[in-house]
Amino acid sequence: MAVYTEVGDEDLVAFVARYDIGEALSAKGIAEGVENTNYMLTTTGGTYILTLYERRVNPDDLPFFLGLKEHLAEMSVPCPVPVRARDGAVLHQLCGRPAAIVTFLAGMWPRRIQPDHCAELGRALAELHVAGADFAQIRSNDLSVEAWQGLLARSAERADEVQAGLAADLSAEVKALEREWPADLPVGVIHADLFPDNVFFRDGRLTGLIDFYFACTDMFAYDVAICINAWCFEPDGSFNVTKAKRLLTAYRRIRPFSNDELAALPVLSRGAAMRFLLTRLYDWIYTPADALVTKKDPLEYWQKLRFHRKVQGPGDYGLT
Amino acid sequence: MAVYTEVGDEDLVAFVARYDIGEALSAKGIAEGVENTNYMLTTTGGTYILTLYERRVNPDDLPFFLGLKEHLAEMSVPCPVPVRARDGAVLHQLCGRPAAIVTFLAGMWPRRIQPDHCAELGRALAELHVAGADFAQIRSNDLSVEAWQGLLARSAERADEVQAGLAADLSAEVKALEREWPADLPVGVIHADLFPDNVFFRDGRLTGLIDFYFACTDMFAYDVAICINAWCFEPDGSFNVTKAKRLLTAYRRIRPFSNDELAALPVLSRGAAMRFLLTRLYDWIYTPADALVTKKDPLEYWQKLRFHRKVQGPGDYGLT
Repeated sequence: MAVYTEVGDEDLVAFVARYDIGEALSAKGIAEGVENTNYMLTTTGGTYILTLYERRVNPDDLPFFLGLKEHLAEMSVPCPVPVRARDGAVLHQLCGRPAAIVTFLAGMWPRRIQPDHCAELGRALAELHVAGADFAQIRSNDLSVEAWQGLLARSAERADEVQAGLAADLSAEVKALEREWPADLPVGVIHADLFPDNVFFRDGRLTGLIDFYFACTDMFAYDVAICINAWCFEPDGSFNVTKAKRLLTAYRRIRPFSNDELAALPVLSRGAAMRFLLTRLYDWIYTPADALVTKKDPLEYWQKLRFHRKVQGPGDYGLT
Repeated sequence: MAVYTEVGDEDLVAFVARYDIGEALSAKGIAEGVENTNYMLTTTGGTYILTLYERRVNPDDLPFFLGLKEHLAEMSVPCPVPVRARDGAVLHQLCGRPAAIVTFLAGMWPRRIQPDHCAELGRALAELHVAGADFAQIRSNDLSVEAWQGLLARSAERADEVQAGLAADLSAEVKALEREWPADLPVGVIHADLFPDNVFFRDGRLTGLIDFYFACTDMFAYDVAICINAWCFEPDGSFNVTKAKRLLTAYRRIRPFSNDELAALPVLSRGAAMRFLLTRLYDWIYTPADALVTKKDPLEYWQKLRFHRKVQGPGDYGLT
């Protein structure tokens, strides 16, 4: 929620002139994305998003992110499309930062999730996985099981301030996940951060997927697990089996699960909960109280993790 | 630089449905304006700005601000125009806040001020003053000379941390300004905050004036003085007489100064400097160091004030 790099009028005019998108008219910094600086860019040709990549993004990853969006858009996945400049490249420098222009995708994300949203999401997620299958680039998931011991170590000293005994509980769970983590499941491009605020709907229909800056190459079923956690629990923490059923059923119509994937869903869902728990825990402990950022409760994800530990079989997710 | 009130999808759709501007497609919080929450709103009908008025704005002032913009737009002043809802009103409630939709004015403000910008500004400022002459509403300037003793008192205790002796210097200057402040000069609607970031240009031509939330009823020449301070000093603090000459000459072609106004320009410019010095001084002392706000140096305005104390006559502003 910040504009880290201010782009002046002359820099903006010169930058936009490198593209075939008309003349720059306006750029409004938008309070979205804590990693990068984003402007809503108006030109005589239309509306775009101008992103300046700040220090938290590894510049080596940018060709993956931009190439992926371009590939997915060609496969009709509704996502922002990088715009190529006259020189044919999508990535340039602006105010000392790597910068890119993507098409503006109008949309609103749902605050009150309904089962119909979950069905739409399941379908779109499967379509994303299918569309990404022939994307040639690889980016390993640097926030998956191998990273969790290290992530936990950064917060462990103060984790018990959040809840007594949390550090030991998390340490034991990370070790269990390392032992139980599946291998040999189908792998491909996953979004890895498909929370409701990254999914646009209009009149109940899914119209867009945004924010591909955690996208990577990992198990498809892990992406499904992330969505189960993000979409199928109620604000009071209870699991809504109807939402999970709608999500999974819609997904499997497009991309059927293997039996191994189905069997791995509980441990993948625990792992998906652990991944967000650990980054939230760190932010919870170390973000200054007066920073203009809403801190997210890490314990929400501890509760979800514990739900998945008790799951007996696919029936608990609404499947038969 | 913040979104204080988050507007959900359902609230947004319902709010926009009260207007004849098409269906809501998207609202992006923009990192602009420290007083209010602003969204860039996209509908099937076009692009707008949706503003939610936060606690720092007095709701009683809103009819003045919105009515003024409507009046000025009718007089062809290039400014955002409030959009009336189907019920005929421009002001409604959204998420517990007074809220309004205005037209989106595309534009970029100049980072490097050239004399030509100052000429454009002078013309537009005079046109604004002329256009506002028959606006019926009155709003007194609550940041003018009567307010300065009180403003200074809020910071006086710690002013010497900024510069040794500053509290005493400011106190003496405020008293001098109270004694010398002119009366009986022509009065009307003034913008009162026409800094470069509130003035849009395209290809060297002024295309828009924004941010009327300090607009009030006060001396026209005081508005000119505010602009002299904001536009005619170089980054190194020196006064650029060419810029002042261009600004004043262009202004006087549209709305001639009286001799009294001309004579009062030095004291008005000192006062205009004092007004921004005092609010900046308070923010400088009391804004937390890690707030995501760029603090502005109050001493920049002390230097400007001292320039105007040495002015001998209109020639020092480039006039003959």
